[in-house]
Amino acid sequence: MDFLARQKKLREQLAPSRLDALLVSHLPNIRYLCGFTGSTGFLLVGETGNVFFSDARYTRQAHEEVKGSKVVISRKAALTSVGEWIQARRKKKRSMGWTLGIEAEHLTLADRKRLADLLPSGLRLRNAPALVERARMVKDKNELDLIRAAVQLGASLFDRALEVLRAGIKETEVAAEMEYAARRAGAEAMSFPTIVASGARSAFPHGRATPQPVAAGGFVVCDFGVILASYCSDQTRTVWVGASSNANGKEARQAYESVREAQEAAIAVVRPSVSFAEVDAAARKVLRKAGLGRYFTHSTGHGVGLEIHELPRIAAGQKETLAPGMVITIEPGIYFPGKWGVRIEDMVAVNENGCEVLTPTRKDFLAV
Amino acid sequence: MDFLARQKKLREQLAPSRLDALLVSHLPNIRYLCGFTGSTGFLLVGETGNVFFSDARYTRQAHEEVKGSKVVISRKAALTSVGEWIQARRKKKRSMGWTLGIEAEHLTLADRKRLADLLPSGLRLRNAPALVERARMVKDKNELDLIRAAVQLGASLFDRALEVLRAGIKETEVAAEMEYAARRAGAEAMSFPTIVASGARSAFPHGRATPQPVAAGGFVVCDFGVILASYCSDQTRTVWVGASSNANGKEARQAYESVREAQEAAIAVVRPSVSFAEVDAAARKVLRKAGLGRYFTHSTGHGVGLEIHELPRIAAGQKETLAPGMVITIEPGIYFPGKWGVRIEDMVAVNENGCEVLTPTRKDFLAV
Repeated sequence: MDFLARQKKLREQLAPSRLDALLVSHLPNIRYLCGFTGSTGFLLVGETGNVFFSDARYTRQAHEEVKGSKVVISRKAALTSVGEWIQARRKKKRSMGWTLGIEAEHLTLADRKRLADLLPSGLRLRNAPALVERARMVKDKNELDLIRAAVQLGASLFDRALEVLRAGIKETEVAAEMEYAARRAGAEAMSFPTIVASGARSAFPHGRATPQPVAAGGFVVCDFGVILASYCSDQTRTVWVGASSNANGKEARQAYESVREAQEAAIAVVRPSVSFAEVDAAARKVLRKAGLGRYFTHSTGHGVGLEIHELPRIAAGQKETLAPGMVITIEPGIYFPGKWGVRIEDMVAVNENGCEVLTPTRKDFLAV
Repeated sequence: MDFLARQKKLREQLAPSRLDALLVSHLPNIRYLCGFTGSTGFLLVGETGNVFFSDARYTRQAHEEVKGSKVVISRKAALTSVGEWIQARRKKKRSMGWTLGIEAEHLTLADRKRLADLLPSGLRLRNAPALVERARMVKDKNELDLIRAAVQLGASLFDRALEVLRAGIKETEVAAEMEYAARRAGAEAMSFPTIVASGARSAFPHGRATPQPVAAGGFVVCDFGVILASYCSDQTRTVWVGASSNANGKEARQAYESVREAQEAAIAVVRPSVSFAEVDAAARKVLRKAGLGRYFTHSTGHGVGLEIHELPRIAAGQKETLAPGMVITIEPGIYFPGKWGVRIEDMVAVNENGCEVLTPTRKDFLAV
């Protein structure tokens, strides 16, 4: 990863953002900028250089991982260390009017107060724009390769799910087999709690696997992803369990085809300069035409990278536009409370001509 | 769970805390108070009743899970829904001087601003004390039963680890086997990324499993836990791989025995009215006497419950005292950078007479 280039780009944005320095507190942002993978740290990015702060648990790891930054390890809390470090240096110089940006979407009120109490008077804290999150929206080639590898590994878990998925198996058993396969194949972790939602639970958009046995004559929504080399995958497939020839099954099949059509319609409009809202609208239009619009209760997608949910949001009202290198999910779904739900989700990478569908898994109606 | 009693207790603390209402935003606090297990929601606790806010993804789940609260579902973001709800009601009444508590340790600066922008002028936002976290420190009988079950399941994973742990196996393979066993036994998830840290990596207190093969002639630190029925377990055992009869192994064995002695010394002082700092000091004293004090680079323990790390902190300077029903870890460790590390961790429940060690696993020196 070209951490130094990322740091340079951020430094160049400080002055236009009217900041003398930025205190990066969000761990995925820190990982993106300097490579630190631990769970406690702050990165102070200034116009003349960077300083990374952590505590004694991370002495060795910080020195090994952190690139392009001085490393300060303290026995005190890392944030105390940040405050004292700035205080010691700004006292010598004039701190009046010196402006430190903070990440308002991530920093808590309590941490802001702890920091402010340590800083010299005259120094200003300012809520910074999401400079790092916005930089992270566009992936470089190295990141795209890592994401492709994560998506491939993630997709292989669905093959494993199909081997075990049948009426009577517990949702958690299906999840166990998928997660075991993920770990054996080298995944660091799942990118979020595995969703295996059967029967009426398939109508819960976020239905984590439970010990409930999978019932025949219904859908199972499988939404899952892995973290491989720090990058996330995210995929959903919905499978019918049992014969789909009965009346209920026919209605279900029609609904499935509408969701698939909506998902493909959204993918078809993904290309540079199209707004996020237009992608969302493309999926929504198909479902509305099928009379299913009001059952599509969430947005169409989101960015994926170091985090499972990151910018951009593919939703109504989002007027910004796609650019090459963005990686997003396309995941329309419909949910009939008390009955069943269907969702189909792929990851796609925006390129110059349109997009590359990263997820390799078939998405025709499948009954097991 | 007696959600209504928990809500009542919190309501009674509002007036003494000079709050008219408290907006609970931290999800484990929300789960504790009303039972909601989803990933988006806010609970407004007022002197006359509670309101739970979420978005359309959680319509059904919220209505099924949430106890003792009105449920408001909105197509807008849940926090917007909170702001608009308060605005609509406080407009009618006088909002002047009405004080809404917010959770400063959890609410971000951006969310505070979003909320404040929606509220009528005159209404005050005040950083509330950690009322819910402090209530959660003392577990009721129901919670203790759930924690015991989680600890038992968690401990069984170490038996599985011992079956596969040998020189040459990858750390991630050991983790995969433990996590698979956890899922098969009904765990909802691991309570944190499984640590299997071998060789020089055992000196990383937070060394997540990597694809590195376990080397002979060194320690492997296994730190792991499960979530079962919402409650976490947390346990560490350190195992020597290979013969321990060489000089290096003898030094390692002595260090191991010192950590074990420190861990048992800390457990021995756990009883009501002893301060958190005294427990920490008991472990530290043993290691200092053995000349190992400066290698013990973290605190002795922490509370465990709905979260893997919660109050209290068992650390120097913590003057508050233990009370029956508190569940904490006791986990001294020593770390020689570049060489190896040892940590031994049990969970204990404070009772009237002292404490019950919940973790059933032996902790004598073990070579595999």
